[in-house]
Amino acid sequence: MNDTALLSYSDVEQAAARLAGASHRTPVLTSSTANARAKAQLFFKCENYQRMGAFKFRGAFNAIARFTDAQRAAGVLTFSSGNHAQAIALSARLAGIRATIIMPRDAPALKVQATKEYGGEVLFYDRYTENREDIARRLAEERGMTLIPPYDHPDVICGQGTAAKELFEEVGSLDVLLVPLGGGGLLAGSALAASGLSPHCKVIGVEPEAGNDGQQSLRRGEIVHIGVPKTIADGAMVTHVGEHNFEVIRRRVDDIVTVSDAQLVETMKFFAERMKMVVEPTGCLGAAAALCGVYPAAGDPAAGDPAAGDSAAGKRVGILISGGNVDLSRFAELVA
Amino acid sequence: MNDTALLSYSDVEQAAARLAGASHRTPVLTSSTANARAKAQLFFKCENYQRMGAFKFRGAFNAIARFTDAQRAAGVLTFSSGNHAQAIALSARLAGIRATIIMPRDAPALKVQATKEYGGEVLFYDRYTENREDIARRLAEERGMTLIPPYDHPDVICGQGTAAKELFEEVGSLDVLLVPLGGGGLLAGSALAASGLSPHCKVIGVEPEAGNDGQQSLRRGEIVHIGVPKTIADGAMVTHVGEHNFEVIRRRVDDIVTVSDAQLVETMKFFAERMKMVVEPTGCLGAAAALCGVYPAAGDPAAGDPAAGDSAAGKRVGILISGGNVDLSRFAELVA
Repeated sequence: MNDTALLSYSDVEQAAARLAGASHRTPVLTSSTANARAKAQLFFKCENYQRMGAFKFRGAFNAIARFTDAQRAAGVLTFSSGNHAQAIALSARLAGIRATIIMPRDAPALKVQATKEYGGEVLFYDRYTENREDIARRLAEERGMTLIPPYDHPDVICGQGTAAKELFEEVGSLDVLLVPLGGGGLLAGSALAASGLSPHCKVIGVEPEAGNDGQQSLRRGEIVHIGVPKTIADGAMVTHVGEHNFEVIRRRVDDIVTVSDAQLVETMKFFAERMKMVVEPTGCLGAAAALCGVYPAAGDPAAGDPAAGDSAAGKRVGILISGGNVDLSRFAELVA
Repeated sequence: MNDTALLSYSDVEQAAARLAGASHRTPVLTSSTANARAKAQLFFKCENYQRMGAFKFRGAFNAIARFTDAQRAAGVLTFSSGNHAQAIALSARLAGIRATIIMPRDAPALKVQATKEYGGEVLFYDRYTENREDIARRLAEERGMTLIPPYDHPDVICGQGTAAKELFEEVGSLDVLLVPLGGGGLLAGSALAASGLSPHCKVIGVEPEAGNDGQQSLRRGEIVHIGVPKTIADGAMVTHVGEHNFEVIRRRVDDIVTVSDAQLVETMKFFAERMKMVVEPTGCLGAAAALCGVYPAAGDPAAGDPAAGDSAAGKRVGILISGGNVDLSRFAELVA
């Protein structure tokens, strides 16, 4: 993992140069109602307005932009529960290369449909009985395609870091940055961006309660594997963070906290009702921590809780909204 | 009506100066999916992100900003089906004066609640049996309060025009501007803005089919009254356009077209699914015309249809999204 250990802010800068003109510079929104509720000054970086509706475009595009001619000729292959699938399909189309995507049979219909619309070939697997990484590696070898996994890859990590880079550039340094955590691409990339642009900013990952493998991993100092978590945050239904990701996270992330599915639904409603935005459940992870009083927690300093005494009152808090791709019928069911 | 006949772009400029620092400069969003569907280049001015969730803040704030000390001491009174109610309540609170709002008993719960939260006193009437304007005039006289109606007022018209002013300033001149039409405040104000900043732009009002009084009025050259229209566009459930508004509309608006409730629902779904935005039914009027192929219509030049032959292909089309205040349960019901 030496290459990941050496990743730094300059790698995020290089990714940003590759993405210039291809990705949207998404808006940063504020809300006085949200500030009053969180007792802090919140800055929402809205990657739900990114191309294909999520930050994942950044990492996928950055990885494919580095392909050699031989790699381009054979095409790209990946596995994904949804947004990375669309990201690879769209980035491949923009690069004019073939893309094969392995998706779980229970992925949201909207994400499957959009992936096909972008021209990707979709193959299904059963996320509760089959190992998608094994299937992907075997197929990539058979077809000579380059495997770009959804998060465990240095180029993916650095691409994802460009969202936080834009946030810091727009609003200046922050006290806290809250980042949704699934496999760790956005969290690791954001931590690299913070290291260069706001070195005193606390970088906090936010996971669903049912899938707190990241929190366990950070506390034990090694990657912890869990069963497939059952949560409405479908983008965070991973069993372990990536190896490259963990190399960055254990060095540069201050803490990982969790929120419940009920808190995610409450946050989705808040976004729809007060900020007129559609945000998918996974996209609400960071915001839920701030809006539902999860971070900072009323920790006990004696127990060594790193969040202890770290009141958010008046602090400048960045929040990454990771995406907005949710089936409308599902969205309606959740917020009604 | 001499004072309205003399209204011009410079009145919109003065309103913009009063609003500086008080209203949000809302974002202008684009969508390649929307462009492909409308076969035109669309620019969405998102007043659903305005303070209190709709453009109405602009007109209300502008009107109250011109109050004398005596008017301020007595307070402001209005009648409104919703967004103007919140706009007056919030603007009055910012000005530190009292506000009384007369609302229909069947106004959306979210709008009633928000009006009360902003500190407004709410009194109800029955929109199918009582005349709100009579009630309002009697109460205003009894209490010595100044009546600021929701649209039929020069200061309200000029305040509303600042949204289109910002749009033209941001994207330059346009070929067409599509504007939701209820009482005519936004449409008249937008036409004044266009006259100063993009004089060759066709300004088109868009009404619900069930309430096409504006279209009838423009064609007959005089204000036509209809029964209370039954439409999901609750902000456009008016029986006639305002007198001040019509003075501007008949001089400066090129045409008025209508869309069906089904087209409004289709447009709400498009905004939620593809642009991740919550837009209320009335807010979808302008966009529905472009996205559902209503304007330009395949008109018959022989019949003197002003839209005949006016293909939108490749044209630069501005669209005002008027607001995003819809009960979440209602929204869920409509888009599911």
